[in-house]
Amino acid sequence: MKYFFGLLLWMNVLGLSARETLKSPDGDLELTFSLDQKGTPVYALTFKGKPVILPGKLGIVIANDSISLRDGFTMTGTRVSSVNDSWVPVWGQSSRIRNHYNELEVTLYQEKRATEILLRFRLFDDGLGFRYEFPKQKNLNYFIIQDELTEFSLAGDHKAFWLPGDYNTEEYRTSTTLISEIIPRLKTRTLTVGENYPLYENKGVFSVQSPLMMKSPDNLYINIHEAALVDYPAMSLELNDRKFKVHLTPDAVGNKAYIQTGFTTPWRTVLVSDDARDILASNTILNLNEPCALETTDWIKPVKYVGVWWEMFVKGSTWAYTNETNTKLGKTDYSALTPNGTHGATTENVKKYIDFAAKHGFDQVLVEGWNEGWEDWYGLWKEDVFDFVTPYPDFDLAYLRDYAQSKGVRLMMHHETSAAATNYERRMGEAFTFMNDNRYNAVKTGYVGYPIPRGEWRSGQWMASHYLRVVKEAAKHHIMVNSHEAVRPTGLCRTYPNWLAQESARGTEFEALGGSAPDHTTILPFTRLVGGPMDYTPGIFQLTFDYYNPDNNNRVHTTLVKQLALYVTMYSPLQMAADLVENYERFPDAFRFIKDVAVDWDETHILEAEPGDYITIARKAKGKAEWFVGGITDENGRTAKIDLGFLPAGRKFTAIIYEDAKDTHWETNPMTYKIRTVEVTSKTVLSPVLAPGGGVAISIK
Amino acid sequence: MKYFFGLLLWMNVLGLSARETLKSPDGDLELTFSLDQKGTPVYALTFKGKPVILPGKLGIVIANDSISLRDGFTMTGTRVSSVNDSWVPVWGQSSRIRNHYNELEVTLYQEKRATEILLRFRLFDDGLGFRYEFPKQKNLNYFIIQDELTEFSLAGDHKAFWLPGDYNTEEYRTSTTLISEIIPRLKTRTLTVGENYPLYENKGVFSVQSPLMMKSPDNLYINIHEAALVDYPAMSLELNDRKFKVHLTPDAVGNKAYIQTGFTTPWRTVLVSDDARDILASNTILNLNEPCALETTDWIKPVKYVGVWWEMFVKGSTWAYTNETNTKLGKTDYSALTPNGTHGATTENVKKYIDFAAKHGFDQVLVEGWNEGWEDWYGLWKEDVFDFVTPYPDFDLAYLRDYAQSKGVRLMMHHETSAAATNYERRMGEAFTFMNDNRYNAVKTGYVGYPIPRGEWRSGQWMASHYLRVVKEAAKHHIMVNSHEAVRPTGLCRTYPNWLAQESARGTEFEALGGSAPDHTTILPFTRLVGGPMDYTPGIFQLTFDYYNPDNNNRVHTTLVKQLALYVTMYSPLQMAADLVENYERFPDAFRFIKDVAVDWDETHILEAEPGDYITIARKAKGKAEWFVGGITDENGRTAKIDLGFLPAGRKFTAIIYEDAKDTHWETNPMTYKIRTVEVTSKTVLSPVLAPGGGVAISIK
Repeated sequence: MKYFFGLLLWMNVLGLSARETLKSPDGDLELTFSLDQKGTPVYALTFKGKPVILPGKLGIVIANDSISLRDGFTMTGTRVSSVNDSWVPVWGQSSRIRNHYNELEVTLYQEKRATEILLRFRLFDDGLGFRYEFPKQKNLNYFIIQDELTEFSLAGDHKAFWLPGDYNTEEYRTSTTLISEIIPRLKTRTLTVGENYPLYENKGVFSVQSPLMMKSPDNLYINIHEAALVDYPAMSLELNDRKFKVHLTPDAVGNKAYIQTGFTTPWRTVLVSDDARDILASNTILNLNEPCALETTDWIKPVKYVGVWWEMFVKGSTWAYTNETNTKLGKTDYSALTPNGTHGATTENVKKYIDFAAKHGFDQVLVEGWNEGWEDWYGLWKEDVFDFVTPYPDFDLAYLRDYAQSKGVRLMMHHETSAAATNYERRMGEAFTFMNDNRYNAVKTGYVGYPIPRGEWRSGQWMASHYLRVVKEAAKHHIMVNSHEAVRPTGLCRTYPNWLAQESARGTEFEALGGSAPDHTTILPFTRLVGGPMDYTPGIFQLTFDYYNPDNNNRVHTTLVKQLALYVTMYSPLQMAADLVENYERFPDAFRFIKDVAVDWDETHILEAEPGDYITIARKAKGKAEWFVGGITDENGRTAKIDLGFLPAGRKFTAIIYEDAKDTHWETNPMTYKIRTVEVTSKTVLSPVLAPGGGVAISIK
Repeated sequence: MKYFFGLLLWMNVLGLSARETLKSPDGDLELTFSLDQKGTPVYALTFKGKPVILPGKLGIVIANDSISLRDGFTMTGTRVSSVNDSWVPVWGQSSRIRNHYNELEVTLYQEKRATEILLRFRLFDDGLGFRYEFPKQKNLNYFIIQDELTEFSLAGDHKAFWLPGDYNTEEYRTSTTLISEIIPRLKTRTLTVGENYPLYENKGVFSVQSPLMMKSPDNLYINIHEAALVDYPAMSLELNDRKFKVHLTPDAVGNKAYIQTGFTTPWRTVLVSDDARDILASNTILNLNEPCALETTDWIKPVKYVGVWWEMFVKGSTWAYTNETNTKLGKTDYSALTPNGTHGATTENVKKYIDFAAKHGFDQVLVEGWNEGWEDWYGLWKEDVFDFVTPYPDFDLAYLRDYAQSKGVRLMMHHETSAAATNYERRMGEAFTFMNDNRYNAVKTGYVGYPIPRGEWRSGQWMASHYLRVVKEAAKHHIMVNSHEAVRPTGLCRTYPNWLAQESARGTEFEALGGSAPDHTTILPFTRLVGGPMDYTPGIFQLTFDYYNPDNNNRVHTTLVKQLALYVTMYSPLQMAADLVENYERFPDAFRFIKDVAVDWDETHILEAEPGDYITIARKAKGKAEWFVGGITDENGRTAKIDLGFLPAGRKFTAIIYEDAKDTHWETNPMTYKIRTVEVTSKTVLSPVLAPGGGVAISIK
């Protein structure tokens, strides 16, 4: 299937433009590539004949280089190839992943600069990936990218599910508007109701973040993102009319990326389908990433965990050991300070979680606030906040380590870096060795605040590389990583499967910090999760906070059953049961689902899906004849249609169905539910009723 | 001698200002401190009744704090004390250092902010040191300094020896002008002849660097610098008329310093005398630094070395192994590349230096260009250039290590970081371990280029802390450090005596890069060396470069004898004999002085000194009855007066005198000299004639 297109120089001499086309394996997607009259690369994409991406430019601006790589190109070669194979992920939504695409490689020569670049396009049945490649050559070695000119020119005024452009955080509520409304909303700072997060870093540019999910007026589902963000800044999408242009996060001096040839950019991806379920089922982002780079992976295991965490949000437990704020790394004698009496990570409290984890079969116990430094960790742009190896006086690490071991569970490490990446890089070798010495095999990292190096952003090239450096260094120590406040994921967990999960979005903690809309988790799988698993920390049972404090009228914006369903709909090989031990003990029947639900899967079936409205997913537990179904809805109640046709035919199974009760409502009565056990077969179709903001969860054996 | 001054609040209530005075132990210097009508701290300094520093303000601007710490102060306490003791340096210009000062501590309270700060003034006989202290307190914990308001208001239009303000380098020629000429020269970029270094970072501010040496119209010698630069940006001196104001190097986002209370700033120092020799003899900068912080120091030894270095400048040897420039750390297989044939650090060449070092009693052999990465190390702002542990294929490290050991010498490590401090911090632990494993105990570090973290400067807080981090980490490995392109020194070698030397000024390499004026080394001891030892790399014998290449008309701007004298006049416990082996072999009689001269001293006697004109210094070798005298002059010849009164009385000694010959001249005939041996006593006064740009060197046993 491979052939050479040959030299097309003559066409430019005649003022004609070269034109190449490529189709997806099923023929539905068609890519067109050409050079315009100025020799600027242009591409376009259609789906079943409908325009998805109108002709849009490609190009790179090199700093201090007037010619750059934007026009004046001739096409000196093309090559088409096809791949249809599959691979086995270390963990995932299915035990084997099909990788089926047609590829067009275009070699472009810029005569003035005497420079060659390649463009590589891959068309899968559900989307497009393309990237720039800079081969080693005489006239281009180490250079600075000032701008990437890639355009995504859309064909209509689509509905868009968007986060405002921000170099430092993805923890926004999603705004759902037409594309034409985005700029007016950004100008007037009228985002989704309740959203007043400061748009502090991206002034003068109207942009949104990726993954950007859209739905066209003629019901095409389109998702723009990127894959394999390695040694490059993350992209935002700068908007001009209906045309988005890549906007790369700058570094401290305004440069975008420092590149040495023999380099490829991340893939720019466009997922497309007329069925929303295909977006959720897509493996294109993973397929565009490199295969596993780790020598061994037998030490990587999906994890279900509990921990000392939610109590900080609802019970007033503190990360800090004392109210003294003038603490200094390595110089403060904590044993001489007065404890504040609210410290969460005490030996006694952690022991309770260990007992609970052991009793109910959880793998690990996360402990936040175990280590010295929390007294003034936040908002100060302070570099040496934590050393990651020194426990507070009331956290008996050796005792708890041994106690956990005796109970068959592990402690989970927590490294809040305060975004001081320089400090973390200095210390992480020692910190990981400390973990090895004390039986930890997983770490939750945190980056709250503005990064150090100062002037860098969490989505810039330096920080993107930092997160990956941490994952690679952790891998050397056989440690799994769960990064919070990291750059949004782009499928790198395929290459580094010890990168179990990330946060990089508005997680459950925000339910205690102003709340998230009831449709939040019906959107996230179409946006944030396109890049990889999220440590969403579901499982909150006590959904109203006046339970803890009569003055606190905040609440979680879901029903209790929806919290269960999230274990299925929010895919992650790392799942927390985030609520307090005592709350689970109050609802043992509902808690059973969290205990039972798997965290690794042989098969995934997207049964129903509409972004912003509802999602229903069924999954088969890895290596077991067990299935779990999760269905969620937004603020509107609905009746799900759950066709169990994925079950093996001709056999009977027992299903436990966790449903919202008749009067359940996320806002007025969220904590009622009913549980029933029924016999089912592959021919069964269930029609559970989901309350407003509700869900359904089913386990089948 | 200690007492409390008591509360002075009532004075401010009455609109009066508080006023304190302090005298130096000998009574010549008098400091006055007061608060003006607005409660702004003001200080002034006189010497023998003459004004040195006119009343000038003190204060600190805190970022995002409208009150800050600039006025509204009341004096709530003062304390005067006196110290007269001495200490023994690990190495130095004398074996014991007197520390004699009177101190005034002033406590200031800012009522609006409810904040207390302290000012501490120390008056030595030869100068003043003062600093800000921020005690731990309720209303000030971690904060950002936006500006330091310290003023140095001079009493006249002094002659000044200055370098233009620049956040990133001190490698300028010195300009010698009146203070009133500084701004016009900076505006018109007319610095000292031949100086066209770009003033790229300090736009809009007219400033000079410290140490700033001045001579008043009435012959006072005044030097402004700082001591103990720890976790703070270096200062420049922003000029307005005759008033200098501290200008701190900003970080990437324009902030100056991130401070946690329980902090003291560096000392601001003003050395003063009516005898220029006192400036050279001063130990005030060292005395203001903290005592040695290292647990053991027996592994620290002054070093005399040769090395593969000067040949890169004059013979076309290269640091790089190959002409291929697209090399990538850890990915390039150098053994597959074609060597360029000019690589300096080959096994064979290094062996030659080892043999030479062994034969002539040198301790170490520096090898630059031994490790992979030099192909595109420079000017690219590239982060991962070097790993500091991987030798080039033609440098047989294990063989050379063992060969050097068999000859009783050591190799000296070289870590060029390309100013990528982040990369170095990641790798230095491993790099120092590698040194330990291979018998290296000294490292020359280099920071050519713009720093990474990008946006930081070599004189900013982050980089200043970086250099110290390297020194501390090296100390853990019992490694001595010689930092090139580091922030200018401030006497920290007292606290960390493994910080043997720094460059931080225009060294001998510039004689091959455009040259340095003949008065250069008569100025440096009054400026750069006030902060600590410099690795100036003297000892060039082949002074004209047409010897290597007929087209190269450049030359060293000294006579050969002056090169010898520099071993005495340019104090450093680390001294290189920088010229090529073959050149030393051509002049064995003159080379004898370099072989003989000590690098550590019991006593130092400044015999003659005038900045910009001449310096004559005698020193007694540590623990030996050997003395060495060095005398240098600028472009004018002169007759030195060398009174040997420092010798023990009543005994006869043999002196070998290395002199310029009758016709010697730095420009026309630099390499002629004569050597004579004479008998001397403590009553001898020698009057050697120094050629223009010449010198004299004497060894006495």
